[in-house]
Amino acid sequence: MQTPKKIAITGSGLVGSLLAIYLRKRGHHVDVFDRRPDIRTMEFSGRSINLAMSTRGWKALENIGIDQPIKEISIPMDKRAIHTPGKPVYFQHYGKEGEAIYSISRGVLNKKMIDLAEEAGVNFIFESKVWDVSLEEAIIYTGDSEKGEWTPHQYDIVFGADGAFSRIRHKMQRRSMFNYSQDFLKTGYKELSIPANKDGFHKLNSNSLHIWPRGEFMLIALPNLDGSFTCTLFMPLEGENSFEGLDTKSKLDSFFRNHFEDTMEVIPDLMKDFFKNPTSALVTIKCEPWSSEDKVALIGDAAHAIVPFYGQGMNAGFEDISVLNELMDEYGDDWKTIFSEYGASRKPNTDAIAELSYRNFIEMSSKTADANFLLRKKIEKHFSDKHPDKWMPLYSRVTFSEAPYSEALRVGDFQRNIMDGVMKIKDIESKWDSLEVENTILKALSS
Amino acid sequence: MQTPKKIAITGSGLVGSLLAIYLRKRGHHVDVFDRRPDIRTMEFSGRSINLAMSTRGWKALENIGIDQPIKEISIPMDKRAIHTPGKPVYFQHYGKEGEAIYSISRGVLNKKMIDLAEEAGVNFIFESKVWDVSLEEAIIYTGDSEKGEWTPHQYDIVFGADGAFSRIRHKMQRRSMFNYSQDFLKTGYKELSIPANKDGFHKLNSNSLHIWPRGEFMLIALPNLDGSFTCTLFMPLEGENSFEGLDTKSKLDSFFRNHFEDTMEVIPDLMKDFFKNPTSALVTIKCEPWSSEDKVALIGDAAHAIVPFYGQGMNAGFEDISVLNELMDEYGDDWKTIFSEYGASRKPNTDAIAELSYRNFIEMSSKTADANFLLRKKIEKHFSDKHPDKWMPLYSRVTFSEAPYSEALRVGDFQRNIMDGVMKIKDIESKWDSLEVENTILKALSS
Repeated sequence: MQTPKKIAITGSGLVGSLLAIYLRKRGHHVDVFDRRPDIRTMEFSGRSINLAMSTRGWKALENIGIDQPIKEISIPMDKRAIHTPGKPVYFQHYGKEGEAIYSISRGVLNKKMIDLAEEAGVNFIFESKVWDVSLEEAIIYTGDSEKGEWTPHQYDIVFGADGAFSRIRHKMQRRSMFNYSQDFLKTGYKELSIPANKDGFHKLNSNSLHIWPRGEFMLIALPNLDGSFTCTLFMPLEGENSFEGLDTKSKLDSFFRNHFEDTMEVIPDLMKDFFKNPTSALVTIKCEPWSSEDKVALIGDAAHAIVPFYGQGMNAGFEDISVLNELMDEYGDDWKTIFSEYGASRKPNTDAIAELSYRNFIEMSSKTADANFLLRKKIEKHFSDKHPDKWMPLYSRVTFSEAPYSEALRVGDFQRNIMDGVMKIKDIESKWDSLEVENTILKALSS
Repeated sequence: MQTPKKIAITGSGLVGSLLAIYLRKRGHHVDVFDRRPDIRTMEFSGRSINLAMSTRGWKALENIGIDQPIKEISIPMDKRAIHTPGKPVYFQHYGKEGEAIYSISRGVLNKKMIDLAEEAGVNFIFESKVWDVSLEEAIIYTGDSEKGEWTPHQYDIVFGADGAFSRIRHKMQRRSMFNYSQDFLKTGYKELSIPANKDGFHKLNSNSLHIWPRGEFMLIALPNLDGSFTCTLFMPLEGENSFEGLDTKSKLDSFFRNHFEDTMEVIPDLMKDFFKNPTSALVTIKCEPWSSEDKVALIGDAAHAIVPFYGQGMNAGFEDISVLNELMDEYGDDWKTIFSEYGASRKPNTDAIAELSYRNFIEMSSKTADANFLLRKKIEKHFSDKHPDKWMPLYSRVTFSEAPYSEALRVGDFQRNIMDGVMKIKDIESKWDSLEVENTILKALSS
């Protein structure tokens, strides 16, 4: 049991809303501030990037008994559907039989989470901009503009769940001894859409994450409940084959015709959407420490924004909450220890998933089109099926386990070295499922 | 020739003042804003960290004909004087005969630079706080407080020379695609002082940079013109043997008695200064890009703050000016190209000196106390004296040459690999100057 506190959360996104539910169920008074209007009152286009909920995310929902209503608005994807020019679609299963990641629309999920938080007794204060925070006193300041009048709001504890460009972190950053980095990829993204068939069904296999890997750029598509797919085109911002370069309808048309011909039919609004939808940037943000005494803490993207290529952004943020929850059980009212242990425990893991996510762009955009890579995955899966206690593939460890991300990074590197050796075996293509290969791996594992 | 522009520089520190002189001599109108009062009107304690001017710094002063007045306020240091407990002081020369780095008091130098800039026709506006900048329009905003009334000042070009915590960079950082990092060392520093003897002479060898290397912490001393030394104690901020830990006079006394006994006599005000002077933090700051179109550019610490262990902070900032000056010669009024070439040319080099400076703390605080390290340096020097065309030691390449820092880092790593092999030669202690060793190095260089 914890003594009830008056807690403010800045940001009513996925992590802010879920954290609010956890804290409210522990008896705290919880106010959530957001600069934007209530997402439930806004017309929702269905065109935000879809999320892939996996084990870490589900666990945080299960803990608090809200996984079922969320499962109802999600679609399981148990495989990649890889579209390579001139070849049939190749299906690569993500994990074992029954394992899947779940496609959910960010907007639909966020509305649902706010509903659930309100039911639990959380107060939401929308269209209220938080400009500053006193880290020593847990006072937040709201107002219409940065230079206008501000109203102070006194709390016991403030959580910054206000995303990659967090104001709470911004204040921390101006102190000494606060380490911080923001790194933008030269690759940006733009959202496109594959509408449903007239009969309401999906135009492509609905239980797959579709990838059109083309090296420097790629297109992906995740299914929605209404039969549509949300697509995301990832491409360099500048240079050859870039968002900057595709500045006319005819250039766009011939680019798609050259590289994504099979999509032209299923993306009818390509021209309109491409030039209407914004081109967005991708950033990795790291910082340390994540908290100030027992007063203020960062969570989710505010503490560790990552690029989306492992589908772990939300999952990592939800896992922050699971860890915080365990520490609240353990340390009760000692918030200073809760916060310092929370940061110490999470930081190496969010650094690891940042690295893995960064690397996964290469895997998705280039390697999934490479026969050697697909063979490597097939060998790993074959061995792992035979020796599940000896080999969990990296993707599974990240996505279908609760093992620390830092362990996944370390073990993944170890496994890659072994597989580099295996792939050099002569005629590996023909004897990939042989005893020789199996024994080679067993020997490498025990050495 | 360039068309005269109206240029603002934020920051009247060393880089801001020197840049102002360069720009003024090219015919531009130059206003320098500083939030602090005129340093020339302030009582100056002589206790800031001393600087070590080396080749890159001197070159930037020579170019514009102001090296002589600066040389008059500096003291050459041609060697390290290494103080190890129970051993005589060991003198390690920095370079060849006649090569030296020059100790200058930051305050004395800054006053002189502002005098020289005023003589050249630069306007200084002191006690004027710049809170914001329009990156698109080169307007800077000054005012008494961040939330009070601001006055706009329109310029053609704005340079941010406002140091590690630059407001100009702060504005850039809030844009998309601006990469940024700040990393604080767990080691901090505090200034102490060795006063002159009664006769006005130095208590220790005046042409040396004195080091008391003790592993996790170290003391250094640089000579001043008045016979005193400015000392800096570098030590962890927290933990065993830390600034936090030394919280009583008796703890401080026994710490110095244990580790720096030979300094007790020459630092008479240890107790007073240690508890009066602030403990400061050390930060490495990197960012990119350094400019916005043809309107705003960063320079010096605002673009690349580094830790002080290679004595290259000011030198790197002055080299920024030399590079900018060459680009102004080359591109004239094409400021957009000047700025983009400037950033592209400097960034890999300032990243390299950041890395070298970070590594040099280990060299100074630990390795200079290690006989193997001193032998390694002796072998390098011996070989370099015999084959100056084949081997320039890393320290010399950084300090006594104008080779790009990135080249120094790369060649230095190559040389280190060779020397790692040399140091494994049996009985290297006795045959360090043998033909065998010389031939080993020659062979490694040509392989």
